Amino acid sequence: MKISGVPYRTLWPGESGLVRVIDQRRLPFELVTLDLKTLEDAAHAIKTMVVRGAPLIGATAAYGLALALRTDASDRRIEEASKILRATRPTAVNLAWALERVRRAIARLDPGQRFEAALREAGDICEADVEQCRSIGAHGLEIIRRLAKPSARRVNILTHCNAGWLACVDWGTALAPIYMAHDAGIPVHVWVDETRPRNQGASLTAYELGAHGVPHTVIVDNLGGLLMQRGEVDMVIVGSDRTTACGDVCNKVGTYLKALAARDNDVPFYAALPVSTIDWSLDNGRDIEIEERSASEVTEVSGRTAAGEVASVRVVPDGSAALNLAFDVTPARLVSGIITERGVCEASREGLLRLYPERRRTG
Amino acid sequence: MKISGVPYRTLWPGESGLVRVIDQRRLPFELVTLDLKTLEDAAHAIKTMVVRGAPLIGATAAYGLALALRTDASDRRIEEASKILRATRPTAVNLAWALERVRRAIARLDPGQRFEAALREAGDICEADVEQCRSIGAHGLEIIRRLAKPSARRVNILTHCNAGWLACVDWGTALAPIYMAHDAGIPVHVWVDETRPRNQGASLTAYELGAHGVPHTVIVDNLGGLLMQRGEVDMVIVGSDRTTACGDVCNKVGTYLKALAARDNDVPFYAALPVSTIDWSLDNGRDIEIEERSASEVTEVSGRTAAGEVASVRVVPDGSAALNLAFDVTPARLVSGIITERGVCEASREGLLRLYPERRRTG
Repeated sequence: MKISGVPYRTLWPGESGLVRVIDQRRLPFELVTLDLKTLEDAAHAIKTMVVRGAPLIGATAAYGLALALRTDASDRRIEEASKILRATRPTAVNLAWALERVRRAIARLDPGQRFEAALREAGDICEADVEQCRSIGAHGLEIIRRLAKPSARRVNILTHCNAGWLACVDWGTALAPIYMAHDAGIPVHVWVDETRPRNQGASLTAYELGAHGVPHTVIVDNLGGLLMQRGEVDMVIVGSDRTTACGDVCNKVGTYLKALAARDNDVPFYAALPVSTIDWSLDNGRDIEIEERSASEVTEVSGRTAAGEVASVRVVPDGSAALNLAFDVTPARLVSGIITERGVCEASREGLLRLYPERRRTG
Repeated sequence: MKISGVPYRTLWPGESGLVRVIDQRRLPFELVTLDLKTLEDAAHAIKTMVVRGAPLIGATAAYGLALALRTDASDRRIEEASKILRATRPTAVNLAWALERVRRAIARLDPGQRFEAALREAGDICEADVEQCRSIGAHGLEIIRRLAKPSARRVNILTHCNAGWLACVDWGTALAPIYMAHDAGIPVHVWVDETRPRNQGASLTAYELGAHGVPHTVIVDNLGGLLMQRGEVDMVIVGSDRTTACGDVCNKVGTYLKALAARDNDVPFYAALPVSTIDWSLDNGRDIEIEERSASEVTEVSGRTAAGEVASVRVVPDGSAALNLAFDVTPARLVSGIITERGVCEASREGLLRLYPERRRTG
């Protein structure tokens, strides 16, 4: 997508095998890129959320594994690098999926060929992600089109956290249908949950929607319920960091509260996700490990000072404890539908298997 | 309640008819008092949230009306001052209630006696509030005691916004039962919603619980649902800015989302409130006017910088709109019970009328 008219992706290969990424910790006030040259650079970028969003974490991890093999591409090194990368963010299932895909692509090659092959595979993962997001957008667009139909009226869509192009390589998952609707001339307006504690909505979603010219309004995470009670939300679309085989959706903490409000007010609630975020090994969302992050993300808020610098302020009294769990699980019963690159399905085992019949166990 | 061992109230009469209040905009990092000498001082203190919380707004408005009459206590002046004070915060029903109470007390007096009489009435309103909060605490304590009983285990209570002594004159509404349980040796722990946009939870509730020594943990507003899914919340207690005759509870925006999560996880959800927050003229919570406040409360966050100063940082990109509605309405069907100074009742017309039989219309 574009920033000030210039097309961007969230990461792209640079010279001599390095990978360049947008440093998302600096948005929305500064657009800065960062070069990843080593495994450690990539692991650090994922852990500190230079890059974030399930699909982008997967793509960065794939490149991280490739970078690890530049000087030593032994089996032991692959094992060691995978372990380091897997430990960076425990909840996002794409991370393990992307590592596995690179490993499969290079397992039978001579160590001398592995670095180049891993780089190529990471590049293929990125291209596939862009295509998947484009397809998710096309399928989601049809839902928005139906909502707009009665009188070509404005469609109000609420989203939580950032599942836009900044969370992917391009397009986004939850935001892809919105970009396509906007580009197709459908009048869309987005309610952007600020998404504490890290404010990915206020800083990233608002930024990328603004850069593309999509009308939007930032709201605190507390407001969505009232807006739904008042009929000012036509649909909710969120992304997912991990989705179980039965359709439970693990996403940024607070998503579950919006799903409850959507159900209570008959507002359709969709999760948009590529197949790589589906964890076919898990049925029940309660079994998903929820990442606990630093309490300082709760006690401190980062933003731009009156002097124009980016700084943090403490918002909690000294001596008060804080707890920071990053995700929650929305049970399938609250999800109206799942939008994937293959189409829209019911949030259930049967629904997902209809789209991915190759996952049916033969009995 | 106490701050560093010193007993405080949120407002108290000073010399020569002025009123002294804690400036709550400066908490939790600075404890500063402010003198209110005129009607304009009082109106400004309510509007800018130097004082906030339904009962404290009522008490301050009562004093504000008294201060207005120091040099001119004509009927016209009473009318004019009431109008100015009523316009400061449209949602809190105590404000109108307190003004009405002062007006009734002075209506038949000579203008020369009105200033002193209004001051006395405002003082009586404060004393009555303290007594009501103490009774709310005693009734709520019994609920906490029952939850603790099984094994004298820790009782985890979630609260939203600040309905503690800082919202009242002393004790608080939602927090009064918690203080009493803590003082009675029941092991309580409070999950404190930070409560964006103004962070009254992180700044005021955490501050006053900490000052009194009650164990607590600050969480973002998004986390409560997950904690309930995990069984880590035994009850929710919130205050109310206005409660309808049928038990719909209008409180700080986001309360409704917590009530939905409580219902979904079989967690009891209570609202604690004095009779003065009940609007007997309204049945349906949808008819309550919801105050819209400045978008800057969403786009800016105030806290303490690394240098130790209190400052604001902008958290939303330039050019993104923001909407700031301050309250939402939790329908009675989601409220397990209402704790008032007369006892605990069902959130329904019948329940409230059983506690306040004098409100039954004779037919």
